[in-house]
Amino acid sequence: MAFVQIRAAREGDCGDILRLIRELAEFEKLSDQVKISEEVLRADGFGENPFYHCFVAEIIPAPGERQGPCIVGYGLYYFIYSTWKGRNIYLEDIYVMPEYRGTTGQELRPRWTQWWSNSIGQGIGSKIIKKVAEVALDQGCSQFRLEVLEWNKKAMDLYKALGAQDVTQAEGWHAFRFEGEAMRKLAGR
Amino acid sequence: MAFVQIRAAREGDCGDILRLIRELAEFEKLSDQVKISEEVLRADGFGENPFYHCFVAEIIPAPGERQGPCIVGYGLYYFIYSTWKGRNIYLEDIYVMPEYRGTTGQELRPRWTQWWSNSIGQGIGSKIIKKVAEVALDQGCSQFRLEVLEWNKKAMDLYKALGAQDVTQAEGWHAFRFEGEAMRKLAGR
Repeated sequence: MAFVQIRAAREGDCGDILRLIRELAEFEKLSDQVKISEEVLRADGFGENPFYHCFVAEIIPAPGERQGPCIVGYGLYYFIYSTWKGRNIYLEDIYVMPEYRGTTGQELRPRWTQWWSNSIGQGIGSKIIKKVAEVALDQGCSQFRLEVLEWNKKAMDLYKALGAQDVTQAEGWHAFRFEGEAMRKLAGR
Repeated sequence: MAFVQIRAAREGDCGDILRLIRELAEFEKLSDQVKISEEVLRADGFGENPFYHCFVAEIIPAPGERQGPCIVGYGLYYFIYSTWKGRNIYLEDIYVMPEYRGTTGQELRPRWTQWWSNSIGQGIGSKIIKKVAEVALDQGCSQFRLEVLEWNKKAMDLYKALGAQDVTQAEGWHAFRFEGEAMRKLAGR
């Protein structure tokens, strides 16, 4: 029986991670913003002082099955700092390929039913979030943050069902971004 | 003539930084959330691998004036990672004491007029943001992000005037937070 394994990413996974980064940006309708390359992901995530950490979800085929292991999801995170609570984690990206999502089962082949479930909290996305929560607690973090697009109701519902608070809604936080020309102008360059 | 200096924070500034962190949280009406101590700020910001970096705005008195230098603002930031653009900066906090803000001049004594200005982009807050933009460019970052409460119109207007984009408004990003009991439950602890 095939099964899914959530494990820390290795340098050799960067090609797959980039493929999924592009799929996620396409899903978010913002794919023109992806400028990163596999080489940069390798250098930035797997040097002496990595700028990010990553979990991947890998399908391990049953013995005797012809295809090899296949990466179908990832969660990319890094450490941030709260002046209220100290060290924390930010989950920059979380993505699971549509045909492997816990919330849309109809595309899945029967052999996936062992680890797939329609119940919230049992899918691959939830498993990745759980891994990140474990790292956070192990590293003395009291919270982790993430951002989600407001039209992505399924993701919002999942995070809420898992216990997250929408602090844009609850407290009114807006995300701002300085970029490109505006930043160069600010710095007087 | 007194003047303001924006410089990198030193370990000895942590008491002042904590005073301002508390003032900012009070202004944001969220002061019950501040759990951090001066000791933690010292350990986390000034060890071998600091978890954050900080600029402080310090008023340097004119020669012969009786009072010593005084810290009236800060900007606390760290490096984050975008899967679209690579390494970036997040400005976690920016705060200037109300009587030293460029946008409310009436409380300022005449001697401050040299460096104070009602023009957007000339105040202490803008100077701190400019320093952060310089660090970002020096470190190869193409953007920096921050968050602001939607009722804080003065801050929003300043960031927009300096060239930032409100991506919650433009793209619909909502900030989510997992915390405390929810996080422990996720990790099965």
